[in-house]
Amino acid sequence: MKSIDVNVSVLDRNNRIAAEVQAGLTERGIRMVNLLGSPGSGKTTLMEALVNGGHFAPSELAVIEGDLYTAQDALRMKALGVQSVQINTQGACHLEADAVRKALDALDLTGVKTVVIDNVGNLVCTSEFLLGEHLRVGVSSVTEGNDKPTKYPLMFQTADVVVLNKVDLAPYTNFSVEQFCADVEGLNPGVPVVACSALKGQGVEELAALLK
Amino acid sequence: MKSIDVNVSVLDRNNRIAAEVQAGLTERGIRMVNLLGSPGSGKTTLMEALVNGGHFAPSELAVIEGDLYTAQDALRMKALGVQSVQINTQGACHLEADAVRKALDALDLTGVKTVVIDNVGNLVCTSEFLLGEHLRVGVSSVTEGNDKPTKYPLMFQTADVVVLNKVDLAPYTNFSVEQFCADVEGLNPGVPVVACSALKGQGVEELAALLK
Repeated sequence: MKSIDVNVSVLDRNNRIAAEVQAGLTERGIRMVNLLGSPGSGKTTLMEALVNGGHFAPSELAVIEGDLYTAQDALRMKALGVQSVQINTQGACHLEADAVRKALDALDLTGVKTVVIDNVGNLVCTSEFLLGEHLRVGVSSVTEGNDKPTKYPLMFQTADVVVLNKVDLAPYTNFSVEQFCADVEGLNPGVPVVACSALKGQGVEELAALLK
Repeated sequence: MKSIDVNVSVLDRNNRIAAEVQAGLTERGIRMVNLLGSPGSGKTTLMEALVNGGHFAPSELAVIEGDLYTAQDALRMKALGVQSVQINTQGACHLEADAVRKALDALDLTGVKTVVIDNVGNLVCTSEFLLGEHLRVGVSSVTEGNDKPTKYPLMFQTADVVVLNKVDLAPYTNFSVEQFCADVEGLNPGVPVVACSALKGQGVEELAALLK
């Protein structure tokens, strides 16, 4: 009996394209960051905080916005003077490298030093797909609860940097920062965890240093 | 050239099983509720609040916990004296009706009036799959931001009840309850929106009345 493992071949093809995308950017001296996290973990607000805090010059940054249908997040980048391109997945739960390659072609990368992929809000599916990034940043927020690393390990295992966002709300929740950090360390020893409040600008300077 | 639409046939098969599951429960006088939402939106905490508030007798309730790998949420139900069964998806992003059918077979449904499916935390993929539920409850929390209905419409469009959770944190965020409710109404006219704080027990009585 023959069987075809569709998942493996889809991932193989994706990862081959991702490697090509990454090599092309490296050659041009451009760094790509893949920003992952649940819906509402604060990925776009973190981007706003990085620009508003003066850590990234708008002209040196370009953003690929992954979204199911809308262009809301791309409009937020436009308001900051940051070049962006929208990938609408038409309901699909993650981005793939081929779509990122096309998005990069649609950007004017002259003078751009950093491209950020603001991924679809999804703590499960997005982590499975390499997109050509040089750095993978997993964003989790205090209000999601400290059990997220053990319940949804892949994002935390594959991240180069973990952001714990919305720490300003910690006093109003039952979140344990110690437990969260211990669980992340267990899944991905040595990965830096940056405590941030994107809305209040807290921790953003430390994050910017890790992204550059 | 031949083509096979894998997605459609997978969904067709799923929906056929879902209809059978629902019919079997209806015949036994049991109501099934499918609880959907982002990771950390508060689905399991809502279940705890419903039991702790005396709105569901533990013996009349059974919970199907959908999780990628762990049994953490099933243990929270066990601590309340509520019968539960764990479906570990081994990394998959949603539950399917066939797994729910097997989970129901593993429960002792004698005296049970309500079965709740505490779905995988995912605002995208879970909404596509009917699981045999009589009532679909979409949970979104204030801390996720008020743009979630327009950005992730399917859960809000297919819900019979929408829970807006963590309203106790609204004063510390830039969340607009009016915008959220207007957007939900636009996507799903007439759907009830219940403002809750599962942690503080707020709105739980109103939710209980809608679930029964």
